[in-house]
Amino acid sequence: MMEKNTKDYVFGTHAVLEALKAGKSIDKIQMSREFKSENFHDIRNLARDNDVIIQRVPVEKINRITRKNHQGIIAWMSPVDFADIEDVLPGIYEKGEEPFILILDGVTDVRNFGALVRTAECTGVHAIIIPDKGAARINADAMKTSAGALNRVPVCKSSVLSGAVKFLKNSGLKVLGITEKGSENIFEQDMKMPIALVMGSEETGISNQVMKHVDGLVKLPMKGKIASLNVSVAAAVSMYEVLRQRG
Amino acid sequence: MMEKNTKDYVFGTHAVLEALKAGKSIDKIQMSREFKSENFHDIRNLARDNDVIIQRVPVEKINRITRKNHQGIIAWMSPVDFADIEDVLPGIYEKGEEPFILILDGVTDVRNFGALVRTAECTGVHAIIIPDKGAARINADAMKTSAGALNRVPVCKSSVLSGAVKFLKNSGLKVLGITEKGSENIFEQDMKMPIALVMGSEETGISNQVMKHVDGLVKLPMKGKIASLNVSVAAAVSMYEVLRQRG
Repeated sequence: MMEKNTKDYVFGTHAVLEALKAGKSIDKIQMSREFKSENFHDIRNLARDNDVIIQRVPVEKINRITRKNHQGIIAWMSPVDFADIEDVLPGIYEKGEEPFILILDGVTDVRNFGALVRTAECTGVHAIIIPDKGAARINADAMKTSAGALNRVPVCKSSVLSGAVKFLKNSGLKVLGITEKGSENIFEQDMKMPIALVMGSEETGISNQVMKHVDGLVKLPMKGKIASLNVSVAAAVSMYEVLRQRG
Repeated sequence: MMEKNTKDYVFGTHAVLEALKAGKSIDKIQMSREFKSENFHDIRNLARDNDVIIQRVPVEKINRITRKNHQGIIAWMSPVDFADIEDVLPGIYEKGEEPFILILDGVTDVRNFGALVRTAECTGVHAIIIPDKGAARINADAMKTSAGALNRVPVCKSSVLSGAVKFLKNSGLKVLGITEKGSENIFEQDMKMPIALVMGSEETGISNQVMKHVDGLVKLPMKGKIASLNVSVAAAVSMYEVLRQRG
């Protein structure tokens, strides 16, 4: 569905600038320390606006990737194209399915992200929403950990995650935050209706902005003394509860 | 419960030999390339019998660990002491609880193992059974990934895993293998009774020996096309189904 056949990188000032202008999914830009161009400011500003990292590297590093005339700049393309949740949602209803969306609010660990996408694909999640900034980098490691699922589940970037939450609620979804701070047991929730689950970051949990807008905060019951689950595990149990209820 | 205050290593021919003879939990032995001792064969044979790896290393490597008279040999102690399932099981019944055991049949990835132990602790698993040979090394990485849970859940080594399965069945437990080859849906099983869940290795699944003796093979329902879950994710969903049913 999301598979791409484009090559992994483009090089040269003009090609990188065009990729940025066209809004292509760029994982990162590598720029030699000596890089000079009249387009420098355009590249820097477009990269910043699109949350693309620019790494300054020794020119030898780029020489090792291509011997062609790279002019000291190379852009690594993301292995996935991003979708727009406002485009994805109507298609789910048209298929006669109950929407099932996963929102990742600050999951930055690439392996956790890949593991989450893998389980999402196995549980029938229709789309994953991540923030523009502060999300895990979607690179080859993420693809590998996802066991290829990144090619199968649409990933949507949102500049303001609380806006996406509001959009989903207005579209008839129940949005539940999964957090140890939750007051209700996840196993007592009705998950048969259209639903979105929000997972927060391992360090700080769900952001205050998103927390304010969810329909409820629910927790997984815990025994033992550690009472802390890895985010990809907590998400997996939650996603499977949706699948279990829907049967 | 299982916390240890012993130091992390012992050194010197005599101390290492005594640790082996006493059946201490040794993670690995490092031996200088020049190591010579009349006890060499005893150490090698005891290490082999106890499935302890011997690494040959440059003597400088041991010098960096201790400047004392190490004689070219150092044994790194395992961060946990192992328990015996035959000792652990009666205690569970005495507490008036329904036994909940996790059997790991060939999970060799240290991070998966640590993640599994972490979730096991959070779901009230009473003990984890691993094989003597072919299990993940229980080292500092495993401890870290387990978030300390390795200090809280008894780990039992079994020389013949199918023997442990038979022992559990004779003790009144239902032993279920979790596998994609399972014919029944895990969510349709009664998990309130005394139970043991078996997880296989990521590569080869549950071994034939163990497969022959389980009470049943069950699977997690799957959507999507990848239809493959990480073992620590599949185990987490399964363990939480026990917790959900027991309420």
